[in-house]
Amino acid sequence: MNTISEVPQPTSELIELAKEVRSASVHLGQTEDEQRCKALLSMAAALEARSDQIVKANQKDLAIAEKAGMASALISRLRMDRSKLLSAIEGVEQVSQLSDPLGLRQLHRELDQGLELERVTVPLGVIGVIFEARPDAVIQIASLAIRSGNGAILKGGREAEQTNKAIMFALQEGLESTDVSNKALALLTTREESLALLRLDGLVDLIIPRGSNELVRFIRDNTRIPVLGHADGVCHLYIDEAADLQKALRIALDSKTQYPAACNAIETLLIHERVVRDFLAIAIPAFTKANVHLLGDSTCVELGVEGIADDKDWAREYLDLILSIKVVSNFDGALEHIRKYGSRHTEAIVTEDKQIAERFLHAVDSSGVYHNCSTRFADGFRYGFGAEVGISTQTLPPRGPVGLEGLVTYRYFLRGDGHLTDEYAKGYRKFTHRSLPL
Amino acid sequence: MNTISEVPQPTSELIELAKEVRSASVHLGQTEDEQRCKALLSMAAALEARSDQIVKANQKDLAIAEKAGMASALISRLRMDRSKLLSAIEGVEQVSQLSDPLGLRQLHRELDQGLELERVTVPLGVIGVIFEARPDAVIQIASLAIRSGNGAILKGGREAEQTNKAIMFALQEGLESTDVSNKALALLTTREESLALLRLDGLVDLIIPRGSNELVRFIRDNTRIPVLGHADGVCHLYIDEAADLQKALRIALDSKTQYPAACNAIETLLIHERVVRDFLAIAIPAFTKANVHLLGDSTCVELGVEGIADDKDWAREYLDLILSIKVVSNFDGALEHIRKYGSRHTEAIVTEDKQIAERFLHAVDSSGVYHNCSTRFADGFRYGFGAEVGISTQTLPPRGPVGLEGLVTYRYFLRGDGHLTDEYAKGYRKFTHRSLPL
Repeated sequence: MNTISEVPQPTSELIELAKEVRSASVHLGQTEDEQRCKALLSMAAALEARSDQIVKANQKDLAIAEKAGMASALISRLRMDRSKLLSAIEGVEQVSQLSDPLGLRQLHRELDQGLELERVTVPLGVIGVIFEARPDAVIQIASLAIRSGNGAILKGGREAEQTNKAIMFALQEGLESTDVSNKALALLTTREESLALLRLDGLVDLIIPRGSNELVRFIRDNTRIPVLGHADGVCHLYIDEAADLQKALRIALDSKTQYPAACNAIETLLIHERVVRDFLAIAIPAFTKANVHLLGDSTCVELGVEGIADDKDWAREYLDLILSIKVVSNFDGALEHIRKYGSRHTEAIVTEDKQIAERFLHAVDSSGVYHNCSTRFADGFRYGFGAEVGISTQTLPPRGPVGLEGLVTYRYFLRGDGHLTDEYAKGYRKFTHRSLPL
Repeated sequence: MNTISEVPQPTSELIELAKEVRSASVHLGQTEDEQRCKALLSMAAALEARSDQIVKANQKDLAIAEKAGMASALISRLRMDRSKLLSAIEGVEQVSQLSDPLGLRQLHRELDQGLELERVTVPLGVIGVIFEARPDAVIQIASLAIRSGNGAILKGGREAEQTNKAIMFALQEGLESTDVSNKALALLTTREESLALLRLDGLVDLIIPRGSNELVRFIRDNTRIPVLGHADGVCHLYIDEAADLQKALRIALDSKTQYPAACNAIETLLIHERVVRDFLAIAIPAFTKANVHLLGDSTCVELGVEGIADDKDWAREYLDLILSIKVVSNFDGALEHIRKYGSRHTEAIVTEDKQIAERFLHAVDSSGVYHNCSTRFADGFRYGFGAEVGISTQTLPPRGPVGLEGLVTYRYFLRGDGHLTDEYAKGYRKFTHRSLPL
């Protein structure tokens, strides 16, 4: 997906397929938790039974990719050997053990005698997933979708075509013996279809892109369907004047180097001017040892930082072992920088001053705001959600790391016995609005 | 807003204004509940003190509108006499009595010893409101915005320009003596500004359109900012074979005639073929008496319905005393029709068969699904939310009637003491994921 073109109109075949998935999802949405769990275990068993075929299909994809000179990092993402497959299968079993996200009563209220309102979680319907390279994403998303009662239309990268087909074959085979229709899952195979998916509003309720910032931005700009995901993760760590500098260094190293390609890794370090000299004295050798290339403002460069950071650096997501450093004259300077350049993903402060920490937590408008810990904790598994649908940097919920709740919505049920609004408008009856047990 | 053109680029003045509102909203978002309530009461007092000016300004708008030959229904929406103003002021006081939507802890979890995660409701930031004709909307939205800690940029119709200015003057004057900056509220006055507002992503977090379906659709298609609202409300009432027909008639009349211009009024009646003859025998005279023009399929016309409904009628939102009627051969036929033509707003079934009712409630994918009561109950006040921000027909939350919760989001706070992710990745430490009291 390097060159992105116009979004084509969906073909009648694609519309037909989407309607089939939608129709299967209506039945799936009304299944019991037990039926969905059984379907997941059957999907896992079928993946295991078909593991030889899947690994062989992957070898074909790998051979083509190697011949085409694909970068080794991408090759490694594409690889689906037996051990990777087994861990993906284990993931399906784990998703079956998560608590049911459906049928949760969020509100229960008597509006008047005999007129009761309920708000209950229900599936979204059909999710569309567009992802690059990683074939394990098919398995993960398919299991999350079925667990939450949703149909799914998946489109993987062309590089993983054989692998994805073999995986989807096994998943659908697994569903055959269950109460969930195997039409609830569909795999798109051409690039045109994947883009036309963006036009299926009314048939697809949520798009989840898994790939480059460019892909996510293109999708956001070219669909009316809601998109769950984030384009940028420009995360900041602010080292306050009251920071324990050793603690600050450990947190900065973890936030940058634990997995630099992740969206929750920091790109910029903000340092209070009163501690910048002492901090850089210990940080420059430590970062150099960790192979991190440092860029900084003029003060930092004077204090030994290698390169000069320009205005574009403050807005960049390096996704690499590069870190930009800026000196701020006070707390407000840090807030201002974050407000100007941040992507509202995750920001952290290191300080021993609890008051300053609380001020930071309440003033910074990101989906995650941390005190004295690594930004890399911004993750569904680390938060204890059991599974992660994605990380959202939008303002509206769901934001931050999103678990299964990102795949459900709610519906209001109102049960009466001939209740009419005119009687309330005319004052013959009055609402009681009495809370009932959840 | 009849002819809609291209969305212009925002002027530097508009960007400056939006930044001011945003900056004021950051402080507003950190105020205590008491400070926001006091601000609302001060706004209400200022409206009362300035009521003469507001009513006079409205008379100027009315004079211009009458001279221009505005339709009487629109004139009546535009009118802001003393009694309408007093009831709007009472509305502001009521909003101050709603429970605080901010600072609610939705999740509280120990990730590990000394590492605690909280998820707490926070304001969205800045909301943009574009509405037609009704000047009372300025008062309502401004009070909901301030109550929920959000800044608001409002754009009213040109017809209400003098009235809106007088109202905004009073609201800002009211804020002057409070802890909330009067820059948290701004009124746009030109049409170009109102459209350019759609391009202020990054500065505006939510757009709330209040107006025609055409306006809402145009806004949805021309902004990256999330939009809260609905274009269509094509609501259905299904009269099952096991319906009490007298009850069904009362519900149908209320659903259609109690306020036909509302989005939650029904547009189509679906009737099981076994009861259509008996039902129409009592319904035709009753609807005729209520001045409702009936359209129907060929069976209905044979049974005495006045006009024939064509395929376009099933998808139309009349917003008027017109009702289309269709005979379905069974329950599934009703579901199918709703799935094809519904707008996922509100649908109801009338039946004495509780099993069929529950099947309907679980199979219909609208934000509200009702049994034996009027669709007109789909309303924030009737649901007991105290205030209504709007009704959303999107699939993702918030959907249906949305109260103050539509103006808040949440943020994750994580407080640690030097916690690093690498220690968990390497297995030195393990997550406890222990629930803490909310």
